[in-house]
Amino acid sequence: MNGLRINAARLQNNIEALARFGFNEVTGGLDRTTFTAAELAAREWLEQELFRLQLEVRVDEAANIWARRNGAADTLPVIAFGSHIDTVPNGGKYDGALGVLLALEVMSVLADNHVITRHPLELVSFSAEEPNPFGLSTFGSRAVSGKLSREDLSGVRNEQGQLLTDALRLAGGDPGHFERARRCPEELAAFLEVHIEQGKRLLDRAVPVGIVTAITGIYREEITVMGEANHAGTTLMADRKDALMGASEMMLAFEAVCREHPAEEVVGTIGRIRNEPNAANIIPERVVFHLEARGEQHPQIGEVMEAWGRQAASIAERRGLRLNRRLILDQPPQPMDPLLITSFAEQAGRLGVQSLTLGSMAGHDATHMAALTRAGMLFVPSLGGKSHCPEEESRIEDIEQAGNVLLQTILALDGQLSL
Amino acid sequence: MNGLRINAARLQNNIEALARFGFNEVTGGLDRTTFTAAELAAREWLEQELFRLQLEVRVDEAANIWARRNGAADTLPVIAFGSHIDTVPNGGKYDGALGVLLALEVMSVLADNHVITRHPLELVSFSAEEPNPFGLSTFGSRAVSGKLSREDLSGVRNEQGQLLTDALRLAGGDPGHFERARRCPEELAAFLEVHIEQGKRLLDRAVPVGIVTAITGIYREEITVMGEANHAGTTLMADRKDALMGASEMMLAFEAVCREHPAEEVVGTIGRIRNEPNAANIIPERVVFHLEARGEQHPQIGEVMEAWGRQAASIAERRGLRLNRRLILDQPPQPMDPLLITSFAEQAGRLGVQSLTLGSMAGHDATHMAALTRAGMLFVPSLGGKSHCPEEESRIEDIEQAGNVLLQTILALDGQLSL
Repeated sequence: MNGLRINAARLQNNIEALARFGFNEVTGGLDRTTFTAAELAAREWLEQELFRLQLEVRVDEAANIWARRNGAADTLPVIAFGSHIDTVPNGGKYDGALGVLLALEVMSVLADNHVITRHPLELVSFSAEEPNPFGLSTFGSRAVSGKLSREDLSGVRNEQGQLLTDALRLAGGDPGHFERARRCPEELAAFLEVHIEQGKRLLDRAVPVGIVTAITGIYREEITVMGEANHAGTTLMADRKDALMGASEMMLAFEAVCREHPAEEVVGTIGRIRNEPNAANIIPERVVFHLEARGEQHPQIGEVMEAWGRQAASIAERRGLRLNRRLILDQPPQPMDPLLITSFAEQAGRLGVQSLTLGSMAGHDATHMAALTRAGMLFVPSLGGKSHCPEEESRIEDIEQAGNVLLQTILALDGQLSL
Repeated sequence: MNGLRINAARLQNNIEALARFGFNEVTGGLDRTTFTAAELAAREWLEQELFRLQLEVRVDEAANIWARRNGAADTLPVIAFGSHIDTVPNGGKYDGALGVLLALEVMSVLADNHVITRHPLELVSFSAEEPNPFGLSTFGSRAVSGKLSREDLSGVRNEQGQLLTDALRLAGGDPGHFERARRCPEELAAFLEVHIEQGKRLLDRAVPVGIVTAITGIYREEITVMGEANHAGTTLMADRKDALMGASEMMLAFEAVCREHPAEEVVGTIGRIRNEPNAANIIPERVVFHLEARGEQHPQIGEVMEAWGRQAASIAERRGLRLNRRLILDQPPQPMDPLLITSFAEQAGRLGVQSLTLGSMAGHDATHMAALTRAGMLFVPSLGGKSHCPEEESRIEDIEQAGNVLLQTILALDGQLSL
């Protein structure tokens, strides 16, 4: 068992096979957003692969796909592993898909070698992890960990007016019994997820495997800056209360606060902005922007927001603008399980694979699974640090090393846990 | 004739009568955008008023409404006066309408008193002066002065997909013979327009009548800032090429350059901005904004753009962004005719009306008419400097004074011109 290794060629084939679903010939990217026809076809392909391994395939009420391999002691809690197969628009073929295909590869190696584990094993492909047209990311893992209820789905539509509940049914979900997708802590022994790093830290240090210590906290506010609309010609510069100029100053102040924070992992982004009335000859009256801060530790986010808040208030006062702040999201940083971190590190060491512990600056399904069970994550380097774009790529040699660490860690945990 | 005065009560009635068309009960403003049902109804009302004065009413190919009063020497060129009756969305009842209603009032006073001028007189109500859904402002005066052709109309649609040519036909225009709306310099002796100031200079100095020396130049560029889209979590602050942060810095630099320019009349506005992909968790890749500079003298605009251009280029370089600048509009400042300026000032003096010469910071139909004939403008104070909003207001006492200066200047010009 210690000698079991994944089959990199088979895995590579599966990466290419799955990448056909949603492939956009114009951009070269993948358009496989949650519950689209392309994503439903990808689910179908995955289910066929799971059936071929004679796993017990089950689609839960949140349309998560589970595939169970029974253990020798089948009443033991489950060791689960997986990720997601939906993509952002014009995304890449590794984000999410890699974690599901590595899980499939682990199941294949175990089948090839007729391995019987003590614990039952379950592959999981979570629904709708990415930001999606229904506005509910990490949908599947939130459903499983009891953070989403039927009420959260009610009336939610995408821009085409399609109801989330209808889309969910198409994918095999059951909105009427949505809470049945929840799993109890007693059912699970651990959750393991492999993902691409989506940054450059592993690449810059030429390390093939990252062991995640914690998943970043994500904090978002909607900021509204209110000034006075006026004629762009007849209003002298001194008489203006220009909401866009005030917002610009506030945005730059936010960038400066994040840059100056001593922790490298503290980042801040203003990705979304709306200007009103947005006409070339009218001084902007109202600007609304989404401000996002991330950090590995909750107090870091607090420090950033406090420093920025002081500056923003003073900018607003100096410019005669009104400022309104509304909290949208405050997802605290989620540490990964120490036993899993140690176990990953031990197996990497045993396999001679260089590894690095690091924080995850992106959110992942493992954040929510950590509320239910021991959760751990491995990262694979992203070439150029690129992700959510057609250029997203990871080297198969790195993937292979991470896959072997995953496989051996599952086997080691199977021996260690529930004793 | 020297004793003729306008009838302020009748004028006030007409201001209220015209303000019923497009009145929005929710906002209290006027929604009388070019070629909408409300604007067509307002045109109908105006035409009825003109018929009642037994003027020769004619709608030209650009749907401008002309109303002619013959002169004793009817082969002499025309003294024309007027403005426009369309409004911006949620606009006020004085912008444009005042100039047309004062022209109507002048025609009424002359009719009441059976005055026969030497020159023929024409009232004009220009089509589509305001920025409008077809993207062609000062449409009517540009057609009359030969600055718009049939080709400029072709394929132009509003957001609902309505063709400009169809809308123009509804208003009585004739897109197929559009160039026939042009008038020759020989046909016109002068053009006079009364308008609200839309600023606070007259109000601050408590002067009831402004005499416009020049209409501001308007210069617009579309600026595109290109950075790199990237994950808002996994991209460290130092690795970002954030187009929105770069654009913010450039916008603030533009504000500073305009503020620091010694001429008070130099103003700059960024009213319109688009951010891509505009998602909370993606670093902005591309920001496009419209930059507008205005000044009474062309070199002032050049100074502003040169100073800003240097700074913008250096911001782009420091941040690793690409910058693209595209000229959209370069409408030079338009001096008003010296004879008309003098004549307005003389008549104001004779009537004991205090006046102030000042530049117009807004564009007007008179800018284009100045390419054809002597053009002059009078301004009336705007309460609070407000315009393009429901609160737009001018005092009837000020309007009355301006109206009398207009009336007496027309009569004086009638005696002085074409000798």
